[in-house]
Amino acid sequence: MEALYLDDLQVGQRFVSGSHRMEESRMKAFAAEFDPQPFHLDESAAQASVFRGLAASGWHTASIAMRLLVDGGLPFANGLIGLGGEIAWPKPTRAGDTLHVESEIVEIVPSRSRPNQGIAAVRTETLNQNGEPVCVFTARLLVFNRG
Amino acid sequence: MEALYLDDLQVGQRFVSGSHRMEESRMKAFAAEFDPQPFHLDESAAQASVFRGLAASGWHTASIAMRLLVDGGLPFANGLIGLGGEIAWPKPTRAGDTLHVESEIVEIVPSRSRPNQGIAAVRTETLNQNGEPVCVFTARLLVFNRG
Repeated sequence: MEALYLDDLQVGQRFVSGSHRMEESRMKAFAAEFDPQPFHLDESAAQASVFRGLAASGWHTASIAMRLLVDGGLPFANGLIGLGGEIAWPKPTRAGDTLHVESEIVEIVPSRSRPNQGIAAVRTETLNQNGEPVCVFTARLLVFNRG
Repeated sequence: MEALYLDDLQVGQRFVSGSHRMEESRMKAFAAEFDPQPFHLDESAAQASVFRGLAASGWHTASIAMRLLVDGGLPFANGLIGLGGEIAWPKPTRAGDTLHVESEIVEIVPSRSRPNQGIAAVRTETLNQNGEPVCVFTARLLVFNRG
């Protein structure tokens, strides 16, 4: 897919990423490094928690979504430079889940002071193999024109 | 610090985490796995980018903030269970930065249907050694009472 500049973007444009299977060993390794809570590390503790079973750290799910976007899921020519946004984790990510990301451009705001750049608001839904959203992130991304 | 339940929380309560030094090798390893963009991987590419120097993936910064919160930075008795929130990265995180997280409870909403639980909105600022925020996350966290 051709890499896109600011002028190529339109509200309503949609993109679909490739997919990634969540491996239990990687889920536990991520949690051990960044989010060492029992429900991300231990099956029986997770069963007794609100998650009712081992769940990936939400930051792991978000990071996998980022990788899927970088790997062609959101082909912006100057890269994916996020200023921030609204994130939610409606359901847990489980070991063995296969995730992909569907994105839609919801707003484009050209910069007044810098005509060569703007901000695109992109809603990204990370979906599991059942089509259930496990992470929804509406991001504000810095986008540029051909320079 | 004593672990806190829903009944122990008050709007305006503040918490300060320990600190973590960002190592360049770990920044690049995280980026290689989850956010393989040139400005997170290569110094000269990063110099030519909007970041003007190597920058950590925003998901790496957020993940380090999570670790600091789990390691006592936000001592909730039932753990840190995030439903979502508003995130921003006002400045890049650099190799060698020492980060810590300052948190404040900004809202507490008891559940109507489940008297034993509620949602706490917590604003977390991840600050570098100069006191500059590199990540600001106002999270909605599920909190419980003594069971």
